[in-house]
Amino acid sequence: MSDNKRILSGMRPTGPLHLGHYFGVIANWIKLQEEYDCYFFVADWHALTSEYANPTRIKGFVPGLVKDWVASGLDPEKCVIFQQSKIKEHAELHLMLSMTTPLGWLERCPTYKEQKTELVQKDLNTYGFLGYPVLMSTDILMYKACAVPVGKDQLPHLELTREIARRFNHLNNTDLFPEPADMLTEESKLLGLDGRKMSKSYGNSIMLSEPMEEIMPKLRGMKTDENRLRKSDPGDPEICNLYPYHRLLTDPEKLPEIQEGCRNASWGCVDCKKLLMESMERFLTPMQERRAACTDERVREILHDGNKKARAFAEKTMDEVRQVTGFDY
Amino acid sequence: MSDNKRILSGMRPTGPLHLGHYFGVIANWIKLQEEYDCYFFVADWHALTSEYANPTRIKGFVPGLVKDWVASGLDPEKCVIFQQSKIKEHAELHLMLSMTTPLGWLERCPTYKEQKTELVQKDLNTYGFLGYPVLMSTDILMYKACAVPVGKDQLPHLELTREIARRFNHLNNTDLFPEPADMLTEESKLLGLDGRKMSKSYGNSIMLSEPMEEIMPKLRGMKTDENRLRKSDPGDPEICNLYPYHRLLTDPEKLPEIQEGCRNASWGCVDCKKLLMESMERFLTPMQERRAACTDERVREILHDGNKKARAFAEKTMDEVRQVTGFDY
Repeated sequence: MSDNKRILSGMRPTGPLHLGHYFGVIANWIKLQEEYDCYFFVADWHALTSEYANPTRIKGFVPGLVKDWVASGLDPEKCVIFQQSKIKEHAELHLMLSMTTPLGWLERCPTYKEQKTELVQKDLNTYGFLGYPVLMSTDILMYKACAVPVGKDQLPHLELTREIARRFNHLNNTDLFPEPADMLTEESKLLGLDGRKMSKSYGNSIMLSEPMEEIMPKLRGMKTDENRLRKSDPGDPEICNLYPYHRLLTDPEKLPEIQEGCRNASWGCVDCKKLLMESMERFLTPMQERRAACTDERVREILHDGNKKARAFAEKTMDEVRQVTGFDY
Repeated sequence: MSDNKRILSGMRPTGPLHLGHYFGVIANWIKLQEEYDCYFFVADWHALTSEYANPTRIKGFVPGLVKDWVASGLDPEKCVIFQQSKIKEHAELHLMLSMTTPLGWLERCPTYKEQKTELVQKDLNTYGFLGYPVLMSTDILMYKACAVPVGKDQLPHLELTREIARRFNHLNNTDLFPEPADMLTEESKLLGLDGRKMSKSYGNSIMLSEPMEEIMPKLRGMKTDENRLRKSDPGDPEICNLYPYHRLLTDPEKLPEIQEGCRNASWGCVDCKKLLMESMERFLTPMQERRAACTDERVREILHDGNKKARAFAEKTMDEVRQVTGFDY
C-alpha cells in the first residue's frame, strides 16, 4: 500500500461554483493533481439525498460543474473526472456496506443532525439521507484512496469511513480496504461580499462563470471598513471585507502598498475597488476563456473517458469484494 | 397495464428447503408458473441483511436452492429463475428509492421489530437491516409486478411497496411503477415432526433432498394422538401430528379409510406410519431424481439464462427511471 497515492474527492452538482468553492476546494485540487492519482467526481447520488423531490435539477448542473472544474484548471489528462451514478458499482458496494454498518454510527454522526437543522425547508427524514455517510465511505473505499482532502467539518465522516473499512475487513478476514488518512485542508478565507460565509443562498457570491459586467456593480457595492466614513479617515484592512479579496486575487507585491494606503488614508476605497476589479478580471478571464472552450461535447468526452477509468477500478474492487465475501456463484 | 401478468417472489439462500417450504411456498409457485409471467429469484442480498457476519455461507446455499426449486417442479422454460445480486440494477434502484423513503415508514414496519426480537443471537441494528423493506420493494417494482404471492405476515411490506411506488410516481409526475396487488397465499398447514412450526433450527424438519433412510426413523419417532396409549384405544386424527402429513402426501381416496381406522382402532399408529413412509417415498422420489439430474453445471445454465432475462427487464426499468428522474447526463 506504500505506493498508494490515490486521492478521492467530489462535489455535488447543485449549481454553479463561486469563488468560495474555488479557494476552499478547487485550488487545492489543482495542486493535488500534480502530486497524486486524483479521482474527482460529480456526486450526483449525493445531490439526490437532498434533491430527491426535484431530481431533474441535478441533471442540469452536471455539465456546468465539470466546466467550472476545467475552467479552474483541473486537467483531465492529470486526473480522473467521473460521474458517480454512472459507475453502477457504487450502488452495489453501498448496499454491501449498508449490511455491516451499525445504525448507531449513522444516527450519532454529527453532520446528520446539523444538516437536518440547516436544511429545514426540505424533509430529510429519509432512509437515503441517513445513509449518506455510507455512500461517502463507499466512494472512498471503492478507489482505495490513501487520503481524502477534507474540511474540519468532514472529519467525522472520514473517521466513520475508517470504522466501516475496519469492520468489513475484520468480518471478512481481509485487508482489502485501506484506511484513508485525513488530509485536512484549510477552510476558504474568502467570505461573501457582505462578510458572511459565501453562499449562493445568501446572494453574496461571485460565480466563476459570472460576466465581469455583473461582477463590477457587486464589487462597487461592497462594504469596506465601516469606521472609515470619509476618504481622509484612516482605514484598517484587517476589518475590511474587500482586503481578503486582494490577498487572494491581487499581485502579492502590491499588498504592502494597499495596506499602507488604507491605513494612512492616502488612497480611498474607490481606488481600492478599482484595483480589485482589475485583479478580478485578470483572475477570471483566462478561467472564463477555458470555460467557453469547454463545450458540452467536450464535457461528454471528459466524463466518458473518466467514467471508463473509474469503472475499470470499481469493477476490480467489486471483484475483490465478491471474492472475499464469497458473495458470488 | 391490464395485460400485466408478472408475478415476483423470492427466497433467501440460507439452507436446504424442507416440506414446510414446499407446501407453504413452492407448491403455489408451481401453479403460478402455468398462469403468470413468473420471476422467481434467489434473494442473496436479503440473506446478507442477517448473514453479513458470515457472507461466504450464502454462496454455498445458492445452487442448492435452485436445485430444490427445480426438483420441486419449477420449470426454467416456464418461469424466470434468477439471482438478485447478479442484476446490478437492484442495487441502483434500491439506492434511488432509499432517497424518497421516509425513515418512519421503515421504523414502524411491524416485521422489523419482530425479526429483531426473533433473531436475538444476531446483531441486526444495521443500516442494511432497517432498509430491507426498501430492497424488497425494489425487487417488486423493478419487474413492475402486478401482484406478489405473500403470506399474511408479509402484507405490511407489500403495503409499504405500494406507498414507495406512489411516492416515487408522485414526486416524478409519472405512473412508471404499478402498485402490486396482494395475492394472499394460505400458510402451510404442515407443522414439524413435533407439532411446532417446521423449522430447521427446531430440528423437526424433513428436507426435500433428505435420503429416505434418514427420514424413516424420523417418521417412526413421530408423536401421534398422545391420548391413544394402546392400539386398541380409539384415536383422533384431528389432534394427531401424523394425519396432516397424510392429508398432503397420501392418495386422497385413502383418507376416509385412515380416519375411520384410527377412530375405531381398527389399525394402529405403526400401520399409519408405514403408509406415510410409502406416501413420502412416492412423493419425494421423483423430486430427488429431478434434483440428481440437476447438476451444478445445469444450475449455472439456468441462472445464466434467467439472469439474462431479468437483467434485460431491469435495464429497461432503470432506463425509464433515469428518464423520468432526469438522473442522467
